[in-house]
Amino acid sequence: MVRQTFTIGASPVHSPTTHYSPLTTHPSMTNPVLVEITRGPLIESVHRGAIAVSDAKGRLRMAIGDVHRAIFPRSALKPIQAVPLIESGAAEKFALSDEEIALACASHSGEPQHTTRIAAWQARIGCSVADLACGPHRPLHEPTATAMIRSGERWTPLHNNCSGKHTGFMTLARGLGVPVEGYQQVDHPVQRLVEATLTELAGISGPLPWGVDGCTVPNFALSLAGLARAMAALADTRDLTPSRADACKRVIASMKSHPELVAGTGRPCTQLMQQVPGIAVKTGAEGVYIAILQDLGFGVALKIDNGAGRAAETLIASVLIALGAVRDEGAAYALAHAPVLNTRNVQVGQRRVVANLLR
Amino acid sequence: MVRQTFTIGASPVHSPTTHYSPLTTHPSMTNPVLVEITRGPLIESVHRGAIAVSDAKGRLRMAIGDVHRAIFPRSALKPIQAVPLIESGAAEKFALSDEEIALACASHSGEPQHTTRIAAWQARIGCSVADLACGPHRPLHEPTATAMIRSGERWTPLHNNCSGKHTGFMTLARGLGVPVEGYQQVDHPVQRLVEATLTELAGISGPLPWGVDGCTVPNFALSLAGLARAMAALADTRDLTPSRADACKRVIASMKSHPELVAGTGRPCTQLMQQVPGIAVKTGAEGVYIAILQDLGFGVALKIDNGAGRAAETLIASVLIALGAVRDEGAAYALAHAPVLNTRNVQVGQRRVVANLLR
Repeated sequence: MVRQTFTIGASPVHSPTTHYSPLTTHPSMTNPVLVEITRGPLIESVHRGAIAVSDAKGRLRMAIGDVHRAIFPRSALKPIQAVPLIESGAAEKFALSDEEIALACASHSGEPQHTTRIAAWQARIGCSVADLACGPHRPLHEPTATAMIRSGERWTPLHNNCSGKHTGFMTLARGLGVPVEGYQQVDHPVQRLVEATLTELAGISGPLPWGVDGCTVPNFALSLAGLARAMAALADTRDLTPSRADACKRVIASMKSHPELVAGTGRPCTQLMQQVPGIAVKTGAEGVYIAILQDLGFGVALKIDNGAGRAAETLIASVLIALGAVRDEGAAYALAHAPVLNTRNVQVGQRRVVANLLR
Repeated sequence: MVRQTFTIGASPVHSPTTHYSPLTTHPSMTNPVLVEITRGPLIESVHRGAIAVSDAKGRLRMAIGDVHRAIFPRSALKPIQAVPLIESGAAEKFALSDEEIALACASHSGEPQHTTRIAAWQARIGCSVADLACGPHRPLHEPTATAMIRSGERWTPLHNNCSGKHTGFMTLARGLGVPVEGYQQVDHPVQRLVEATLTELAGISGPLPWGVDGCTVPNFALSLAGLARAMAALADTRDLTPSRADACKRVIASMKSHPELVAGTGRPCTQLMQQVPGIAVKTGAEGVYIAILQDLGFGVALKIDNGAGRAAETLIASVLIALGAVRDEGAAYALAHAPVLNTRNVQVGQRRVVANLLR
C-alpha cells in the first residue's frame, strides 16, 4: 500500500471516471519543482514536473502536478506497443523468445548483445536492416561506438535504440498478413492496433493526438493519469481478456528477465530492474519514465516539464524508494542521490528530490 | 534603444541602486515559460527562466522573471575572468595575442586550432598541460574526437573546453609573481582578483557565494541583474578607470575578432558573433547565456531554470533579434527557430520563444 504521507505536494485524487477529459494540451498549470541540482551552497537548477500513480481501474493513488495534460510518452510507450505483437499471435507464429520481446520493449544501447539478436530476428521474419524506417544514430554504449570508429564501421538503423521495437512492428505486420512497408505510418494496421490497445488499456477513447517520434513512428499523446493506468493494467491484468492478460504478462516477464536488453550496460532502466525484483521500468525521451509494479498492482508515469532525463531518472528512483519497492541500497539510491562531479571527478553538487516531496 | 513593446511578460524595472539585495538564494519565485519545444500538434516540453538587460549604471532596461536570485554564471563568467589578466599587465608582459585573449574567454571545442595555440602559449610562460587543474574530457568537436579515437590519441586536460581560461589564470599568476600551483583555489591571489573585478563591474559587494565549476576553479554566484550590469560595463567602459577600460575593450575586441576560438566550428557563440558585428556572446553551462552589446551599451544575462542549453541558445538568439542587433537572417534566426528533427532528419517539431514574449 502507498503510505498516507505520500501525498505531500498535492492531495491524492481518487478518480472513478474512466475518461480524463478535458485533456489539456497546453501547460497552463504550473507544476511543482520536483528535482533540484545543487552546486556548493546554492540550488543551481530546478526541474518541475508531474507524477501519476494509478491502479488498473484508473483510481489515482497519487497525483503531483497536472496529470491530465496531454504528454508524449515517447519510448515509455514501448511495453504497450509490444502487447499487440503477442496478443495477435504474431509472436507465437514466429516463435519469438523472451529476449526478442524484451528487445521490442527496448531503448537499447546498440551493443553487440542487442544488434546481433535483432539482426538474427529480422532474418527469421524475412526482413533486414533495409526495412527499418528508423534512421541511424551513434550507439548509446560509448565503448561500442569507440570500437566501431576504430574499426571504421558505420552505424546503421540497427544501432538505433528503437530497432527492436521496429522489428516488433515488422513481425506484427507479417503476423497480420499486411505489408511491412509503411509500418511507421499512422494509418497502417500495425499503428491502428497500437492505438486501440493503448486507449483500451488506458481507459480512454481515441483518436489520440499524435506526433512523429525520433524513430519516425507515431507517438500517441495521452495524460500521465491515462499512461499510469495503462501501465497498471500491465501490472494487474485481472480485468483484461485472457489473451490480452497473457500478452501483458509476457511483456513484463520478458522485460524483467532481460533488463540488460531493455536498455544496456550501466543504464538506469537496466540497473533498476536488476536491483528491484517485481518491477519493470522504462524511460522515454523528453523526461518521461514509467514503472510497472506488479506487487502493488500500480502503474507509475512521470514527466519532467523541460524534458530532462537526469531529473526523470532521479525522480523515478525516488518514487520507487518512496513506494517501498526498493529494499536495499544500490542503483536506486545512487540514482536518487546522484552526485554532480567536476572534470577531476570530485563531487561539487548533488541531484535530489525536493525535501518532503515523497515520504 | 530598447523598443517599448519589449516589456511584455514583465515590466521593466529601473533600479538606480547599486546593490541587488537581498540576493535570494532559493528559487521561490516562479519564472515564466520562455521557450517551448513542440512535437506535432502539442507543446512537448517547456523551459522557464529569467532575462536581465542592464546598462553600465545598473539600470535594468528589461527584466523578465526573477533577476535578483543568485545564479552561477559558469562559463559566461569567462570574459570577466579575463579582465585582470590584461589589467594587471600580465598580458602585456607575456605579449599575449588577441587570439590568446579570445582563448582565455573560450569554452572551446578542443579542435587543433584551439589546443595547438594553447599549448604554444603555455610553453611561452614556462608551463605545460601538467599544470592544468582541469580534468580531461572528450573534445566537443566530434570530428576531432573521432580522429583522436582513430589514431589512438587520448584526450588530456588541454582538450578541456576551459583550458584557455586556465592558461590565462596561470599567466596571471606568473604576472603577479605568485605560484602557479593552486591557482584554482578560492584564496589564491588569482581568484581573489577575479572576485574583486567581478564585484566592482557588477556594482555589488562581496564576498560572493561560490561553488566549484566543472573545471575545478571557483565560480562566483551573483544575480542576473548584477551579471548583466557587469557585461554592460564591458560594453560601455566610460565609468571605469583607464586601465580597466582598456582591459575590457581588449577582451571584447579579442572575442569579436576570433569568434572561432571562443567556441568552435558550428557552435552557437561562434556563429552568432560571426553573423552579428558589434556583439560578443558567451554561453555557460546549466542554461546561462550573456551578450555584450557595444552599440547599445547594454549587457544581457539569462538563465534557464532547468539548465538546458537548447533553450538558452534559442532565447539569446531571440533576444538579440528583439533588441534589433540582428540585421539579416542567418544563424540567429536559425537558432531562434531551430527544428526538432527525427533520426531521418525530417522536421517533427520546433523550438520557439513563447508568443509575444519579445516584441
